[in-house]
Amino acid sequence: MNSILFDHGRTARIGLPEAVFCEGKSREALVELLSRFVKGSGQPVLFTRLAHDLFAELPEMIRSGYDYHPLSRTAFGTALPMHPKGKVAVVSAGTADGSVAWEAARTLTYLGIRCDVYEDCGVAGLWRLTERLDEINACDAVIVVAGLDAALLSVMGGLTAKPIFGVPTSVGYGVARQGQAALASMLSSCAPGVGIMNIDNGYGAACAVARIINTL
Amino acid sequence: MNSILFDHGRTARIGLPEAVFCEGKSREALVELLSRFVKGSGQPVLFTRLAHDLFAELPEMIRSGYDYHPLSRTAFGTALPMHPKGKVAVVSAGTADGSVAWEAARTLTYLGIRCDVYEDCGVAGLWRLTERLDEINACDAVIVVAGLDAALLSVMGGLTAKPIFGVPTSVGYGVARQGQAALASMLSSCAPGVGIMNIDNGYGAACAVARIINTL
Amino acid sequence: MNSILFDHGRTARIGLPEAVFCEGKSREALVELLSRFVKGSGQPVLFTRLAHDLFAELPEMIRSGYDYHPLSRTAFGTALPMHPKGKVAVVSAGTADGSVAWEAARTLTYLGIRCDVYEDCGVAGLWRLTERLDEINACDAVIVVAGLDAALLSVMGGLTAKPIFGVPTSVGYGVARQGQAALASMLSSCAPGVGIMNIDNGYGAACAVARIINTL
Amino acid sequence: MNSILFDHGRTARIGLPEAVFCEGKSREALVELLSRFVKGSGQPVLFTRLAHDLFAELPEMIRSGYDYHPLSRTAFGTALPMHPKGKVAVVSAGTADGSVAWEAARTLTYLGIRCDVYEDCGVAGLWRLTERLDEINACDAVIVVAGLDAALLSVMGGLTAKPIFGVPTSVGYGVARQGQAALASMLSSCAPGVGIMNIDNGYGAACAVARIINTL
Amino acid sequence: MNSILFDHGRTARIGLPEAVFCEGKSREALVELLSRFVKGSGQPVLFTRLAHDLFAELPEMIRSGYDYHPLSRTAFGTALPMHPKGKVAVVSAGTADGSVAWEAARTLTYLGIRCDVYEDCGVAGLWRLTERLDEINACDAVIVVAGLDAALLSVMGGLTAKPIFGVPTSVGYGVARQGQAALASMLSSCAPGVGIMNIDNGYGAACAVARIINTL
Amino acid sequence: MNSILFDHGRTARIGLPEAVFCEGKSREALVELLSRFVKGSGQPVLFTRLAHDLFAELPEMIRSGYDYHPLSRTAFGTALPMHPKGKVAVVSAGTADGSVAWEAARTLTYLGIRCDVYEDCGVAGLWRLTERLDEINACDAVIVVAGLDAALLSVMGGLTAKPIFGVPTSVGYGVARQGQAALASMLSSCAPGVGIMNIDNGYGAACAVARIINTL
Amino acid sequence: MNSILFDHGRTARIGLPEAVFCEGKSREALVELLSRFVKGSGQPVLFTRLAHDLFAELPEMIRSGYDYHPLSRTAFGTALPMHPKGKVAVVSAGTADGSVAWEAARTLTYLGIRCDVYEDCGVAGLWRLTERLDEINACDAVIVVAGLDAALLSVMGGLTAKPIFGVPTSVGYGVARQGQAALASMLSSCAPGVGIMNIDNGYGAACAVARIINTL
Amino acid sequence: MNSILFDHGRTARIGLPEAVFCEGKSREALVELLSRFVKGSGQPVLFTRLAHDLFAELPEMIRSGYDYHPLSRTAFGTALPMHPKGKVAVVSAGTADGSVAWEAARTLTYLGIRCDVYEDCGVAGLWRLTERLDEINACDAVIVVAGLDAALLSVMGGLTAKPIFGVPTSVGYGVARQGQAALASMLSSCAPGVGIMNIDNGYGAACAVARIINTL
Repeated sequence: MNSILFDHGRTARIGLPEAVFCEGKSREALVELLSRFVKGSGQPVLFTRLAHDLFAELPEMIRSGYDYHPLSRTAFGTALPMHPKGKVAVVSAGTADGSVAWEAARTLTYLGIRCDVYEDCGVAGLWRLTERLDEINACDAVIVVAGLDAALLSVMGGLTAKPIFGVPTSVGYGVARQGQAALASMLSSCAPGVGIMNIDNGYGAACAVARIINTL
Repeated sequence: MNSILFDHGRTARIGLPEAVFCEGKSREALVELLSRFVKGSGQPVLFTRLAHDLFAELPEMIRSGYDYHPLSRTAFGTALPMHPKGKVAVVSAGTADGSVAWEAARTLTYLGIRCDVYEDCGVAGLWRLTERLDEINACDAVIVVAGLDAALLSVMGGLTAKPIFGVPTSVGYGVARQGQAALASMLSSCAPGVGIMNIDNGYGAACAVARIINTL
Repeated sequence: MNSILFDHGRTARIGLPEAVFCEGKSREALVELLSRFVKGSGQPVLFTRLAHDLFAELPEMIRSGYDYHPLSRTAFGTALPMHPKGKVAVVSAGTADGSVAWEAARTLTYLGIRCDVYEDCGVAGLWRLTERLDEINACDAVIVVAGLDAALLSVMGGLTAKPIFGVPTSVGYGVARQGQAALASMLSSCAPGVGIMNIDNGYGAACAVARIINTL
Repeated sequence: MNSILFDHGRTARIGLPEAVFCEGKSREALVELLSRFVKGSGQPVLFTRLAHDLFAELPEMIRSGYDYHPLSRTAFGTALPMHPKGKVAVVSAGTADGSVAWEAARTLTYLGIRCDVYEDCGVAGLWRLTERLDEINACDAVIVVAGLDAALLSVMGGLTAKPIFGVPTSVGYGVARQGQAALASMLSSCAPGVGIMNIDNGYGAACAVARIINTL
Repeated sequence: MNSILFDHGRTARIGLPEAVFCEGKSREALVELLSRFVKGSGQPVLFTRLAHDLFAELPEMIRSGYDYHPLSRTAFGTALPMHPKGKVAVVSAGTADGSVAWEAARTLTYLGIRCDVYEDCGVAGLWRLTERLDEINACDAVIVVAGLDAALLSVMGGLTAKPIFGVPTSVGYGVARQGQAALASMLSSCAPGVGIMNIDNGYGAACAVARIINTL
Repeated sequence: MNSILFDHGRTARIGLPEAVFCEGKSREALVELLSRFVKGSGQPVLFTRLAHDLFAELPEMIRSGYDYHPLSRTAFGTALPMHPKGKVAVVSAGTADGSVAWEAARTLTYLGIRCDVYEDCGVAGLWRLTERLDEINACDAVIVVAGLDAALLSVMGGLTAKPIFGVPTSVGYGVARQGQAALASMLSSCAPGVGIMNIDNGYGAACAVARIINTL
Repeated sequence: MNSILFDHGRTARIGLPEAVFCEGKSREALVELLSRFVKGSGQPVLFTRLAHDLFAELPEMIRSGYDYHPLSRTAFGTALPMHPKGKVAVVSAGTADGSVAWEAARTLTYLGIRCDVYEDCGVAGLWRLTERLDEINACDAVIVVAGLDAALLSVMGGLTAKPIFGVPTSVGYGVARQGQAALASMLSSCAPGVGIMNIDNGYGAACAVARIINTL
Repeated sequence: MNSILFDHGRTARIGLPEAVFCEGKSREALVELLSRFVKGSGQPVLFTRLAHDLFAELPEMIRSGYDYHPLSRTAFGTALPMHPKGKVAVVSAGTADGSVAWEAARTLTYLGIRCDVYEDCGVAGLWRLTERLDEINACDAVIVVAGLDAALLSVMGGLTAKPIFGVPTSVGYGVARQGQAALASMLSSCAPGVGIMNIDNGYGAACAVARIINTL
């Protein structure tokens, strides 16, 4: 109806530019916003939860103005300049956690921060984590993405001295449905000093890490 | 008021003798039952959740008729004869899980089944589990006792081929309060083939293992 | 994106080969995996929660490489060799519990373990259970599958000495919706020594029984 | 402060005289009310949840004016005249359900309705129920009182044609804590036509039955 | 797969013939069952939650063998013979409670019990209930159907001496979503002696009343 | 430790002076605060949830500086000047709701607003409300205080055109425990335009009404 | 089936005319009602939650008789006459709260009450609220609409002396899903005297304000 | 029983020395541990949730070996050496959040990290936060401690670019009881990049910040 009142001063205030959470917004509103912030517009805006179906139906002119990543459902026209230092490890438990892990990774890319993604590290097959541990610990911060019982967080948290954040995912069924079990599990983790995000909030974990990298 | 209608045929039917859950029973009822089943009565009955305060105030004559174990709050006058084979590993995450781990261990002793207890195996310090792994895997069944995020279950479940049961404990605070987080976490475990018990139900896990040992 | 990092050593470590939970995985990922593990590939992999619609649309070449069972939504190309001993009773309460009961039965078949399925044993018509009791007790382990109030578990648990596992199902409406009532009921069962699985987790119960049969 | 505004017309309107739920009322308020309705006052009032400690400390003059029953925590000075017909079976699962079963039985006595109490009928030892079934079915209505998984209700409901009500109790621990599992289980019962009461509400079940007996 | 094991003795045992809950059953299973119990088959079977879409697509031969009622989604070929006495009032709060109110009414019709339905009696417009009160009280039992805060139950329960049952409905949004608020409200009702049913369980309330009418 | 940073400008900003919620504050902190704001200090401060035991043990010098009301557990030294107009009806369902109803009434008195309290208006005895309706409707705003199913709110809301607020109370047991049923019921009320407060928050309802009276 | 029993006397009794909540009503029922209350019928009726798809398919004759507003999904043929005084500020946190904010605004318009809508005032960018504060405080009442953590309510409530109501919205994901976090947050607000509505209940907030404006 | 298996290598592995959570541990166990780690023992161990009553009754010899802080219930004999750089702001909403805020502050002191505590910054009186904002933003990381609706987190998160963590507290009543509302609110915060801790987990927030300071 009326156009959205953007918080233009946000980057100056908190070091993180605007992002648009697309789920629940009308097609009209999204098309208008996507038209506004194409590559070359000069304004970095990240679109998260942008469904592939919706993106695929946009006019070619808009689509070609964006770097779109289907698994993570993220898009941006312009990214922030590359940070000179800092690298992040995104570690996930299973294949089904991929969309959230990559939402974190893509947000970091958008924010100009380097990252590596380590998938399928679930602790029921512990060797998958331990044999990649040195590589992970060579990074400056760790994001752990896991659903079900999210046991990976406690194990990882006990094996690294780096800042570490946990993102529970809505992967699972029965009591694990919609991520409540993973969230409670992560908040109860016996590994000390782990900040937890809302369920499926890969974007938030990337921002939390960015607040750290920005101070290095 | 009236005396309890005991299920005398239970051992014949399911291989497990009667047990009395003491919490919530009146002092009078407990004294009457404890008097009836002292050592020498010939009838094996296990008392669980028998508070130390209550036991300590009983007449010496009753107390001396029981093998009482304060941490687990269990007592029995007569135990079942020793099983010729079978040994169980009770593995717990932290010191605070002790009362539940020992309720399992004591129930096994009462049922005539050998067991070893491995405490402080929480996965935030992974070496505490891995360096005792061979010993644990030499047993015929494993009981995992853990509160908080109960991550130990998934790790243990991925490292043993033996029958394995999980007992969530009510250890913790905040979202972990009263064991709901540990229960959901265990039910969601990514390690396959683990049977879960009610919160703090060490007795039940011992009975489940006994059903297996009884068939060996 | 990247291909999945399989836990190849799992059978050696825990006696249970890999399984793929299909729900929530993309069509592309599933087609790739199904192509890889057809009969003759030599690698036993079980696919669970594989929707009939999806399977029916696969190329004939893939479909013919699988033993697919629509009610349980399970498929496998190669099964494990038959266990020389051990037989399991899968007992379910109502017709609507069928898909979960058969997920357990099919997983057992895949693992090379014999089983019989006893359906419609709900305790509101008690005779349906009692007249089949001897047959059930002739088996080496019992899996009880029930939704709603899951009262069948307590009755069955009080009539067998065999190892017994309960699988609550998401059958029902109102407070029974999504299986929470059945799960709480089973965890609270007054029959001693019953290991409980996550809601609808027939696969897990079969694995738990396999851990026992493997030790016979 | 001000005295309570009693609903004097209630018996005329709904056939059930006033009752006072004592829990949460101040000692002063209760003493005043108990003084008012002693035997001989002519007004039948039932006091429920009246703690034994509180009653024991009342002046002898008041205490002697009441029929007090400690297990059920109920008291009345004057009861209603005996109903010429109708008899109720109160069936409970375990000893710990006693206080609720007897609250129902005592309320019936107060309302002038005959009843028998059948305790320890839990279905994990099915014979305890079946061997008393004929006696129970000779009554005109059945009240089932059970905690934990409350499986007794479904079994009983499938074995009687009489009006039947279920009262879940707060007996249990872990997921059964405070009766939520028993309540959900009863509401989900597969036995048709069973009206359920709030947790521990033995009084309510007696009133529901009285509404039926009053119409005979 | 296999055909359902019907509980043929149920009418003899509990006075209520079999019913089939259609939700969640496969189309194939329903068609088979509907074919079996058409008018003239001699066996009274009630089908509940039978979606209109599904019924409309059945062959004319089957459809013509049933009395189908779209709002309540119920169907039966043969009804029980008319009870010589007894009449039930089904009282509902709002239009949206119609499908549940009529499920109760139709079940009564199937069971041969007369009933009247009183809709739109929500207490926010109290006159709609009070001006029909005499008519309602002339019945032998009352079923109250209400969603949202279900306040109608307490008001009605305080104005009738007849046996009374409450059915919470899943009508509403926000905290009232899926009937949890209505269920809790009804179980907490300050009107004494009201038996409560699972959410949307109009069928169950009718059966509960039938248990009473059967004893008149 | 450090002294509390009071929000002195609050009265100017929102028309409501400071209040101190005493529950959870240390005895030391409360004594210090109570010493500071005795009658004559000139600063109006309301203390809520001030336990009688704690108040009774204060030095006489402090106690005499306060108007303390035990049932509502409120105290103030100085009240605001009397409002020239506006009167509030506080309507409660049962005796047990008294402490919350009087917390609202006492807060109004402190804020200089006249009010009458109407207790025991629970709708299971509808006449208790209807015969006082005219008096209530002569007030300028209504506060409804009720626990259990809180049905009073919908009935009252349908009988008054005045601004009306609902305060659920923690009165009850089982599903009504701690006020969750009453809260959900009130939020779902079918009477339009009722603002709801947190459980037991009589203070908040009085402040909400004060915001209205302040604008008259 | 039967036509709805409207509460015609409602405006006289509580000052608010009838409204029809369309969600969950059948297409037939809605068409009948919409035909009855078109402009010119003389009877003011508000339709809420009237889906755009449904409205768009109505015959032109009906559609032209209504003022329909797609974002808020509201429609009315006849509005109440304009109030001579009173103006309301509807303040919302984010774009996604628009449908609820406008449901409140449209209901006010229908009730003849002037209002302004202030969108995008979320407190993570505090300046968006503070720079419009004087305008908001010039109104006679404030409605705050917010999802997620609904922090806007506490900030706004601490900056205005006007009557203020909070409407939590179902905007969000994970723990914020379906508005439960926003509802709990609003009920716990540290700003005193705020009446809270059910989740997404913009209509209710408008009615609550109307009760105040009606008394000015 | 047996002595606890400490994780001696933890500091080397994750940079954070051992801590002992005292709640739920037996008096005996605590006395033994406290004796072991007095000042001069050379081993830094932090005791959290150490009740004042328990500490006060210890032998003078032990007590004098500890720096004990009653409000935060923390004790340590030896602290880590002072970090050369890094300073943390602990910002709390109300006086009742003090014990958690100071648990964070004391843990930081123990870890050798400088910090300032800013209390009473609740957003209902926004000036209390804004006038201290520059001081807070001069720190290297921010910990926000708040109960009730925890609105402070979103406001603070929108005003700082520094790494920021939220600790919900169990302050409040009704829906805010035990911190669930504050936790959900914080996880839903509209301010990006905030890591959340378990309820009352001030210790964890300090550790999370230490992981950052350790990398500076």
